Amino acid sequence: MNNTFGHLFRVTTFGESHGGAVGVVVDGCPPRLSLTEKDIQPELNRRRPGQSRIVTQRQEEDIVKILSGTFEGKTLGTPIAMIVSNQDARPEAYREMVTHFRPSHADFTYQAKYGIRNWQGGGRASARETIGRVAAGAIAKKWLKQTYGIEVIAFVRQIKDVMARIDLKRVRMSDVEKSIVRCPEPRTAKKMIALIERVRKSGDSLGGIIECVARNVPPGLGEPVFDKLEADLAKAVMSLPATKGFEIGSGFGGTHLLGSQHNDVFARKGKKIGTLTNRSGGIQGGISNGEPIILRVGFKPTATIMKKQQTVDAHGRSGELKARGRHDPCVLPRAVPMVEAMVALVLADHALRQRAIR
Amino acid sequence: MNNTFGHLFRVTTFGESHGGAVGVVVDGCPPRLSLTEKDIQPELNRRRPGQSRIVTQRQEEDIVKILSGTFEGKTLGTPIAMIVSNQDARPEAYREMVTHFRPSHADFTYQAKYGIRNWQGGGRASARETIGRVAAGAIAKKWLKQTYGIEVIAFVRQIKDVMARIDLKRVRMSDVEKSIVRCPEPRTAKKMIALIERVRKSGDSLGGIIECVARNVPPGLGEPVFDKLEADLAKAVMSLPATKGFEIGSGFGGTHLLGSQHNDVFARKGKKIGTLTNRSGGIQGGISNGEPIILRVGFKPTATIMKKQQTVDAHGRSGELKARGRHDPCVLPRAVPMVEAMVALVLADHALRQRAIR
Amino acid sequence: MNNTFGHLFRVTTFGESHGGAVGVVVDGCPPRLSLTEKDIQPELNRRRPGQSRIVTQRQEEDIVKILSGTFEGKTLGTPIAMIVSNQDARPEAYREMVTHFRPSHADFTYQAKYGIRNWQGGGRASARETIGRVAAGAIAKKWLKQTYGIEVIAFVRQIKDVMARIDLKRVRMSDVEKSIVRCPEPRTAKKMIALIERVRKSGDSLGGIIECVARNVPPGLGEPVFDKLEADLAKAVMSLPATKGFEIGSGFGGTHLLGSQHNDVFARKGKKIGTLTNRSGGIQGGISNGEPIILRVGFKPTATIMKKQQTVDAHGRSGELKARGRHDPCVLPRAVPMVEAMVALVLADHALRQRAIR
Amino acid sequence: MNNTFGHLFRVTTFGESHGGAVGVVVDGCPPRLSLTEKDIQPELNRRRPGQSRIVTQRQEEDIVKILSGTFEGKTLGTPIAMIVSNQDARPEAYREMVTHFRPSHADFTYQAKYGIRNWQGGGRASARETIGRVAAGAIAKKWLKQTYGIEVIAFVRQIKDVMARIDLKRVRMSDVEKSIVRCPEPRTAKKMIALIERVRKSGDSLGGIIECVARNVPPGLGEPVFDKLEADLAKAVMSLPATKGFEIGSGFGGTHLLGSQHNDVFARKGKKIGTLTNRSGGIQGGISNGEPIILRVGFKPTATIMKKQQTVDAHGRSGELKARGRHDPCVLPRAVPMVEAMVALVLADHALRQRAIR
Repeated sequence: MNNTFGHLFRVTTFGESHGGAVGVVVDGCPPRLSLTEKDIQPELNRRRPGQSRIVTQRQEEDIVKILSGTFEGKTLGTPIAMIVSNQDARPEAYREMVTHFRPSHADFTYQAKYGIRNWQGGGRASARETIGRVAAGAIAKKWLKQTYGIEVIAFVRQIKDVMARIDLKRVRMSDVEKSIVRCPEPRTAKKMIALIERVRKSGDSLGGIIECVARNVPPGLGEPVFDKLEADLAKAVMSLPATKGFEIGSGFGGTHLLGSQHNDVFARKGKKIGTLTNRSGGIQGGISNGEPIILRVGFKPTATIMKKQQTVDAHGRSGELKARGRHDPCVLPRAVPMVEAMVALVLADHALRQRAIR
Repeated sequence: MNNTFGHLFRVTTFGESHGGAVGVVVDGCPPRLSLTEKDIQPELNRRRPGQSRIVTQRQEEDIVKILSGTFEGKTLGTPIAMIVSNQDARPEAYREMVTHFRPSHADFTYQAKYGIRNWQGGGRASARETIGRVAAGAIAKKWLKQTYGIEVIAFVRQIKDVMARIDLKRVRMSDVEKSIVRCPEPRTAKKMIALIERVRKSGDSLGGIIECVARNVPPGLGEPVFDKLEADLAKAVMSLPATKGFEIGSGFGGTHLLGSQHNDVFARKGKKIGTLTNRSGGIQGGISNGEPIILRVGFKPTATIMKKQQTVDAHGRSGELKARGRHDPCVLPRAVPMVEAMVALVLADHALRQRAIR
Repeated sequence: MNNTFGHLFRVTTFGESHGGAVGVVVDGCPPRLSLTEKDIQPELNRRRPGQSRIVTQRQEEDIVKILSGTFEGKTLGTPIAMIVSNQDARPEAYREMVTHFRPSHADFTYQAKYGIRNWQGGGRASARETIGRVAAGAIAKKWLKQTYGIEVIAFVRQIKDVMARIDLKRVRMSDVEKSIVRCPEPRTAKKMIALIERVRKSGDSLGGIIECVARNVPPGLGEPVFDKLEADLAKAVMSLPATKGFEIGSGFGGTHLLGSQHNDVFARKGKKIGTLTNRSGGIQGGISNGEPIILRVGFKPTATIMKKQQTVDAHGRSGELKARGRHDPCVLPRAVPMVEAMVALVLADHALRQRAIR
Repeated sequence: MNNTFGHLFRVTTFGESHGGAVGVVVDGCPPRLSLTEKDIQPELNRRRPGQSRIVTQRQEEDIVKILSGTFEGKTLGTPIAMIVSNQDARPEAYREMVTHFRPSHADFTYQAKYGIRNWQGGGRASARETIGRVAAGAIAKKWLKQTYGIEVIAFVRQIKDVMARIDLKRVRMSDVEKSIVRCPEPRTAKKMIALIERVRKSGDSLGGIIECVARNVPPGLGEPVFDKLEADLAKAVMSLPATKGFEIGSGFGGTHLLGSQHNDVFARKGKKIGTLTNRSGGIQGGISNGEPIILRVGFKPTATIMKKQQTVDAHGRSGELKARGRHDPCVLPRAVPMVEAMVALVLADHALRQRAIR
């Protein structure tokens, strides 16, 4: 609830973009999992500002420190608290935001909700909040891999009108990480990078689609009614900043098919039962069926742009705003580890829930 | 969790399609709301089988009975339990399902999860489970209307390739209810009905898109991190059977715009602050901004079709299945009140949460 | 929360004493447990009004009906809904309660909380609410017995100043059930019965203490911080009507000992590790240690008495009240199955939680 | 759940006694409350080791740092994270605990639950965990005081056989804080201090009773069924280390009265309705009635003593243990702010819940 996600593998994040620190408490991680900062830091590096020329140049090392929950390199079963200090705090860059609401930002709604807001950077609405998610997700990913062999791989599928064709059966993490835009198809990656650089110079921003595949998910994860696996996945990724759409399996495209075209036929696959096609996206009736889970997330273009925009202040008086912080022309390359983290958190939670009843 | 939805306005549904009854317990509804079965039954009639020639002909009256939680026509603040008996139970129509898994149904995954399943009809995976949701949603809608003037209106936007153009500012419930397909644009509605009738005769099924608009939602509803309003809405509607996609505001279409094109400019609107456009879909930073909330849900074609399909049994031996129950050629007309119910439940829950802190 | 108890083995009760029905939804019970009404009814008979001459003579058969969640005599893993109709509704017996608050009842506080109340009987505050708990507890007890061999036995230890000496190692359910007062020590039971009959004739009421022992609880149940096993047990039994005190193991008596006298020394017991004494009451650091769990619950004398009492109405005007319903001179014999149910629900919940992480 | 307490005013603690830090995240605190470390530190000083000669001499300053959730001295409505570093870590003092289980400690049960434990100090079972509770409780107390005028005052009522007589109507925080043992009755306080000093020299330990009164609680807080106010209070304080018993109002003493003696008669009190006596302890039917809430908590003598004790190791081989850390002869003086914190957290949570529905 609110700043906590999950029922058995529970994650609570805290921190504003310009306060002392951001962090997370992971409660419910099973004991005796090997875990040190070295398992977490690489994932944070993947979402770090300044990691390449096409993302925001805010200077943050984002070094994680585990405060509790491990002993002699292993998890204790007790809460794992992790923090990352904020370094690049430049409140002066945000002076106008004291009075004026940035278009399509959370300034106005936070004020409406709380009657107060931290106008420095995005406060709690900043993408820095996702540091805690990615750190927690790194633990979930490690546990899923070790316990079930589950792999969670996300990548950039589309930026504006540039779309990649990806073979979901073959895509590997190493292919994704080869390009700074995190698109595993090299030629499209090049086009995406060129597009981002062009738009960035114009002070504008871009959106797009991230796709994610989770392999080796055992059948039986997910609850049949409100906590359907696709429902929890939808919530998980739609809780990331800037998301506008979610698809599982055939998605909106599937609405154009007939039932006889859409149904996935069952067949024996070696010793297991599987389906010949996977329009279901690995989930039927809210429960995983053993096929790869496939989902897509749509991100709107980042709200912060370096162009003058019309807006109003708290009294409704009109004015103009132009961002002076460093802007992130396209959040998608950094959002790839965020999507993976959220998917991993959902799977870990449901895996623990399934253990309870079988 | 599992069969419970919401934190303060909490709904727990129960019942299988062929057990004794289906029902719901609503816990957390504020006291002193006028409420009798007459407030609930019309919504159940909207989702009832057999309501028109284009939906499933299963014979169910779906008469609701309130068992608790009201006194002299008003809510007490205590749990409101409601039940609806199952009448049209024909287990013999499902004999083959004892051994064989219906393609793209939940038969296989329930078996994998629980090691047991009610093979009569869909058991818990049946759309009958949504009776409890719709009944609970009727209460939420009434309370939202009375307390905030909130209106939640859903309608069929698309069936297969037949798409309606709807003016979201003007669409009214009475327009939606004029046609049996629940599309408020009469010419498109006609085409949709013709399409459904044609496909139904061929024993096949159709999917499509339902759109929903919620008006007069006050600014400030939604939590900024994991329980963003769009995240909870996504979970809510993606927990309905047969859903494959979710969009808020500009949705996937918005991924093709530049930030300067996508941002919603603030402006004074009478005494309030509003936005000139509404690509945000009424939500910014996870919190409602006072503009109409706009979302779309994609439904796949119904899995049950009257055509022979290949499948396997629990031992992986291949076989054939052909449904003998009445099939629902297109779930969308009946899913309209389901979508409204889920949206209303999310709004009621967040409205109560917001009351707690302000 | 509110009308729901437990995290993985979750129980939601509903119903007022004079509404249509009371009932419960059990969500999270593992699948494939044999279960029919025959497993539930005997426990309801133990808490039924009119079961003996020393309890309330309200006429209720309390016949339970399972509405969902089972199939061919086995649990499905889906919610188990159970209802019991209210029969002996005599609103006319409660006419004065429309305006006047019964002393030490919940009339005043319900009115203060909700601004409305069902003045017929106790409404939601009636002991009839515990029907749902006892029905759910019967399922938990069966599952605990079958899965771990856990036995939960409660009995009346004290009524007013009449106190029994019980050997906790030997006490058996059959001894408890031998007497209508549910005290397994026959001579004390006799005295208790005589006392209750005397006080009942005078129109007054009695309180006392119920003790409960849970045997064969495996080590490792309970969470170390807020959900300590004793904390959840305390909450569970203190949520029963009329409870005023809770003790685990040595309880308040233990406050008079020195640490060197109180500590339980570990020793090998066959192949297991156990303690030579059990002042801890089977729980250390919030987690079960394999020794019997021992707790006591203090009940105040029932508030409803057949004597004239001073009170006020909603406007603070003083008046007099004299109950005209049948009064329950001593709730303890009927509270024995309630205590067992709550203890079983806590143990089942923590057993499932422990399965998730090991 | 587990390391999280509360529904709307939610507290998550983390940290082991010898890890890097202990701390807490408070989620759900209303916005715009003035808050700095100066509001928290005094409460931590009251529970700090080394604060007087009669408590443990472990050297810890326990300086709190707020990491998030405030801005310009006010709460934002976002999670408030607070940490306190561990300083006096002397793992060498705990060498024997690597292999041997301390009697009546959590060593054995943690090992049974998790298959691993931090044997340095108490790990997560250490009283250091309560730092987070007391810090969170300080916020709850401030908010309750400011919003409702609620005062929560606890004090030491009994140590072993030394019992104080306290006038609950008059007791004030300043009287409690006058003596290092936190008993507001000076002559009894002296006797308690002398007793603690004597027992401490002998290397033994003491238990006793803390009483707590909460004044100015408005009528209507608490939920009528599982989350009765007394049930949540019982859970709250029974989740503190070393607690063995809980009483509300008349407690176990009330079991010796007749109903006609125990019932609290209603009467007009100025403009309000109140009760002439308060055996209910301020709660009826699980809901506050406006009278002072009165509860008592029994603490066993601390398990750590400086005397040789028999025990076993993980293989069941017997051995001896003698603590070498500094021992706490009596936890009660330091437990006073812990009890206040837990009571305040329950009241704040229920106050927010009540706001949601009225």
